[in-house]
Amino acid sequence: MCPADQTVATNNNDHLVQSEDPEHPANLIPSSVANSTTGDGLPTSIRQGDHIFIAPSGVQKELMQPHNIFVLQWPTPKYPASDRNYIRKPLKLNPSACTPLFLTAFEQGAGCCIHTHSQWAVLVTLLVEREKGPDACFEISNIEQIKGIPRGKGKGMLGFFDTLKIPIIENTAFEEDLTSGLEAAMNKYPDTYAVLVRRHGIYVWGDNTAKAKTQCESLDYIFQLAVEMHKLGLPWVK
Amino acid sequence: MCPADQTVATNNNDHLVQSEDPEHPANLIPSSVANSTTGDGLPTSIRQGDHIFIAPSGVQKELMQPHNIFVLQWPTPKYPASDRNYIRKPLKLNPSACTPLFLTAFEQGAGCCIHTHSQWAVLVTLLVEREKGPDACFEISNIEQIKGIPRGKGKGMLGFFDTLKIPIIENTAFEEDLTSGLEAAMNKYPDTYAVLVRRHGIYVWGDNTAKAKTQCESLDYIFQLAVEMHKLGLPWVK
Amino acid sequence: MCPADQTVATNNNDHLVQSEDPEHPANLIPSSVANSTTGDGLPTSIRQGDHIFIAPSGVQKELMQPHNIFVLQWPTPKYPASDRNYIRKPLKLNPSACTPLFLTAFEQGAGCCIHTHSQWAVLVTLLVEREKGPDACFEISNIEQIKGIPRGKGKGMLGFFDTLKIPIIENTAFEEDLTSGLEAAMNKYPDTYAVLVRRHGIYVWGDNTAKAKTQCESLDYIFQLAVEMHKLGLPWVK
Amino acid sequence: MCPADQTVATNNNDHLVQSEDPEHPANLIPSSVANSTTGDGLPTSIRQGDHIFIAPSGVQKELMQPHNIFVLQWPTPKYPASDRNYIRKPLKLNPSACTPLFLTAFEQGAGCCIHTHSQWAVLVTLLVEREKGPDACFEISNIEQIKGIPRGKGKGMLGFFDTLKIPIIENTAFEEDLTSGLEAAMNKYPDTYAVLVRRHGIYVWGDNTAKAKTQCESLDYIFQLAVEMHKLGLPWVK
Repeated sequence: MCPADQTVATNNNDHLVQSEDPEHPANLIPSSVANSTTGDGLPTSIRQGDHIFIAPSGVQKELMQPHNIFVLQWPTPKYPASDRNYIRKPLKLNPSACTPLFLTAFEQGAGCCIHTHSQWAVLVTLLVEREKGPDACFEISNIEQIKGIPRGKGKGMLGFFDTLKIPIIENTAFEEDLTSGLEAAMNKYPDTYAVLVRRHGIYVWGDNTAKAKTQCESLDYIFQLAVEMHKLGLPWVK
Repeated sequence: MCPADQTVATNNNDHLVQSEDPEHPANLIPSSVANSTTGDGLPTSIRQGDHIFIAPSGVQKELMQPHNIFVLQWPTPKYPASDRNYIRKPLKLNPSACTPLFLTAFEQGAGCCIHTHSQWAVLVTLLVEREKGPDACFEISNIEQIKGIPRGKGKGMLGFFDTLKIPIIENTAFEEDLTSGLEAAMNKYPDTYAVLVRRHGIYVWGDNTAKAKTQCESLDYIFQLAVEMHKLGLPWVK
Repeated sequence: MCPADQTVATNNNDHLVQSEDPEHPANLIPSSVANSTTGDGLPTSIRQGDHIFIAPSGVQKELMQPHNIFVLQWPTPKYPASDRNYIRKPLKLNPSACTPLFLTAFEQGAGCCIHTHSQWAVLVTLLVEREKGPDACFEISNIEQIKGIPRGKGKGMLGFFDTLKIPIIENTAFEEDLTSGLEAAMNKYPDTYAVLVRRHGIYVWGDNTAKAKTQCESLDYIFQLAVEMHKLGLPWVK
Repeated sequence: MCPADQTVATNNNDHLVQSEDPEHPANLIPSSVANSTTGDGLPTSIRQGDHIFIAPSGVQKELMQPHNIFVLQWPTPKYPASDRNYIRKPLKLNPSACTPLFLTAFEQGAGCCIHTHSQWAVLVTLLVEREKGPDACFEISNIEQIKGIPRGKGKGMLGFFDTLKIPIIENTAFEEDLTSGLEAAMNKYPDTYAVLVRRHGIYVWGDNTAKAKTQCESLDYIFQLAVEMHKLGLPWVK
C-alpha cells in the first residue's frame, strides 16, 4: 500500500494489526489517542487473549496508525526489556516508555491499562502532599461516584460509605523508572485499580477496555470534585 | 439478526423497542446515554402513552442498545418489585436501580425522568448542609434562568422575583432505598420538579422528554452559577 | 409537506423562510439555536435588507424549524406591538419576548442582535454591583481582546489602551419590559454595541451576523477572564 | 470558479493555494482557524520548503478560504514590509499583522508559528507581574508535561527536574510593534520556543506544524495548571 513508508514493517505479523473492526485494539488505540483530551480514558495498552497491543512512543497523537502498534506475546518477561516477546515491531519506532508499567498491571490480571496527565489528578497529588505529607494516599468517602471503582479483583464495587484510597508515588526522571514504585504501591494496596503519580498523572487499569475507561472517567470526576471541594473548604472524608 | 447475543430476548414484544425513528424512546435512551456527560439532561426513563421505557443497569454507556431497554405497562404496582408489569424484559439484564424512583415521578404525572451525578449539584448539596444545616433545601432567587423551572404542575413557570426551592435528601447505600426519601420530599414540596440527593446528584422530571431535558439543563446552569457565586462571596438569595 | 402540523402557516409568505442556503436567516437562526450553549453567539434576530427574521418564543431549542420564524417588514413601528408589520406569522406561536429589544438595536443600525444568559456575564453584573454600586458600568482596559469590540458606529475598533465600558441595566419581571432600560442605556452610552442585564445576561448586536457573533464571543471571553482575574485579586482597570 | 469574488486574485500563482490535500498549508490554516477556540493550537503561519503561507487579517474565522492565503518566497527581507517577496497576494486583503513576528520565528528555523489569546496565558502574565515584577519570566518545574517542550533547537526535550522558562514581553498598541520585543526576548532566551505577551496571549513555534501544535497544547495545559495551583496556594517552582 505505502511501500515507501519506513515505519511499516514487512514480514512482521502485520495481520495482527489489520482489522476492519473499529473495536480491534490496533484500531482502538490510535482512534482513542487521536480523540483524547488530557483527562480522557485513553486505552494506551490492551490485552486480547495472549496478545498485548502497545502504542509507540514519539508519534504525534493525530498521526498514529494501526501499523504503528507493537504486539507482545503474553505472558512475557518484564525485564530485561530485550527479552520481551515482541511478535510485531514497527520499524524505526520504540514502544511506549510506559511498557513495563503496563506489564505490571497485566500481571495483576488487567485487560487494559490507561495513562493520563489529568490536571485534576496532578492537583490532587499536590494537595495530599501539602495537607497529609508525602507518604499519604488520596482518600475520599461518601460520594456516590466511588461506586464506579472496584473494591478489589473479584470483590465487587465500592459502596457509598466506603473510603476510596488511591496510592500516590513520586515521579521519576524517566517514565520506565516508575515501575518499581508502581509495583511497591500495588503490593501495599493490592486491591487498587489505579496509582497516582505526583506532579504527573495517573495509571488506571480494568478487567477489560470498557471497564478501564469507565473507571478512568469516574476517577477523573472524583479528582475534579475533590479539587473544587478543597477550594470551597469542604473535607474529602466525612 | 444476532441470535448468539444472549442479551436479546425473543418472543418478548421486541417490536416495542424496534423503530427507525431516532426520537422513539428505545432509541432516544441509548443515544442520549452514549452522548451524555455527567451534567447532561439524560432521559433515563420515558413514558409514552401506557408504556414506560427504562434503561438497564450495568451496561456500559457506549454499548447500550435499543434491545436492552425494559418496557413496563403503565400504570403498574410500585412494590413489590416482582409485581411490576414488565411487558418486555431483556434476558440476563436488570432494570435500572432507579426504577422505583422513576415510578414515583411518573405517579406525579411526569412524562420523562432524568438522573445525573452533576458535580455542581453535589457541591450545592454540600454547601447547603454546611451553611444552613441538613434539613435545608437549596434556595436561589433573582436569577433569570429560574424562569426555566415550573412553579408546579399546571401553574406556569417561576418568575424572576420568585425563589426556586429544591429539596435535598440524604443518600443511601443502595439507590432503590432513596425511594421513601424521594416520596417524603415530594410530599413536603408538592410543586417541585426535582430532588437533590446529597453527595450523589439529582433527579429531575418533566411533563415530556423535551421539558425534562430543558429543566435539567436549567438546573445545572443554576447550580454551577451558585457554586461560582459562593466562591466570589455572592449570596444566593437577594 | 406536513399539512397536519398546526405550527405551519399557509398562504403566509412561506417563501420568505424557505431556502436551501444554510446561511439564510431562517435556517441560521434555528441551527444556531440548536447548537448553542449558554455563552454562545446566538443570532436570535437578523435583519436582511428590509426584512427582520425573529425566533419564536416557547419552542424547544432542538425543535425549532425555519417555518417557526417570524418576518417583519422593516422599518416597523415598535409600539404598540399590534402595529408591527409582520409579513409572516407562524400559526399558534408568538414572537420572542425580546422583539422590542431587538427592534431597538435595529433602530441603531444593527444587522443582527444576540441574546445570551452567559454565566460569566451574570457574575460580572453581580461583582460590579457589589464593588462599584448599582449605577456603575462594567469597565476593563489593557486586554488585547477588547480590540474585538467597536469603539462606536463607524469609529473603528477599541485599542489596547482604551477602556471598554458596557452599561448594566436592572432586570425586570418580563423580558419585554427591559426595553425602556435598554433604550436609556443606549442613550447614555451611544457608542456601545452591548448592554448587560443584571442577574440575567447580555444583549449584543453588530453591523451584520458575523460581526455580532464575533463581538459576542469576544465579550464572553472578556467576562470569563474578568471573573478569573477577580478570583485572583487582579484589578480590571490598570 | 467565482469570477465575481473580488477577494480572489487572478494571474497570481493561485496554484500555490489550490490542493485537494487537507494537510496542505493553504487548507490547514483556514480549517484550523475555523475550528479554533481561544486556547487551541492554531497554525497561523506555516513554512513549507521555500514558501511561507500566512493568513489574512480581518477575515471572519468561519469565512476564511484557501484563496485568502498569502504566500511569501523564503527567505525574504523582514523590513521594510514593502520589500517582502509576496508571490501570491489576495486582492483587497492585508496579511496578518503578526507577519513580522512570524518571520522572526522562521528566521530561528521554525516550520510553523502559532498565536493564541489563551486566557490561561493572559492570567499567568498578570500573576508573574504581580508576584515577581515586570521583568520576570514565567517559571515552573517538576511537572511531567514540561517534557513536551524542547530544551532548545536540537537539544532534545526538557526533563522533569528542569525548569521551564518562558519570557514575557509587554503588549503594544499595534501587533506589528511587538516584533522588537519578541526579538529581544529571543536573544535573551535563545532556547525558547515561545514568548508570552502580557495581557494578550502567546506566540509558540515549532520545527514543523505537528510539533508547534503539540507544544502549544502542552503550554496551555501548563498555564491552566499553574493558575489552578496559584488558586490553591501551591508554588510553581519546587
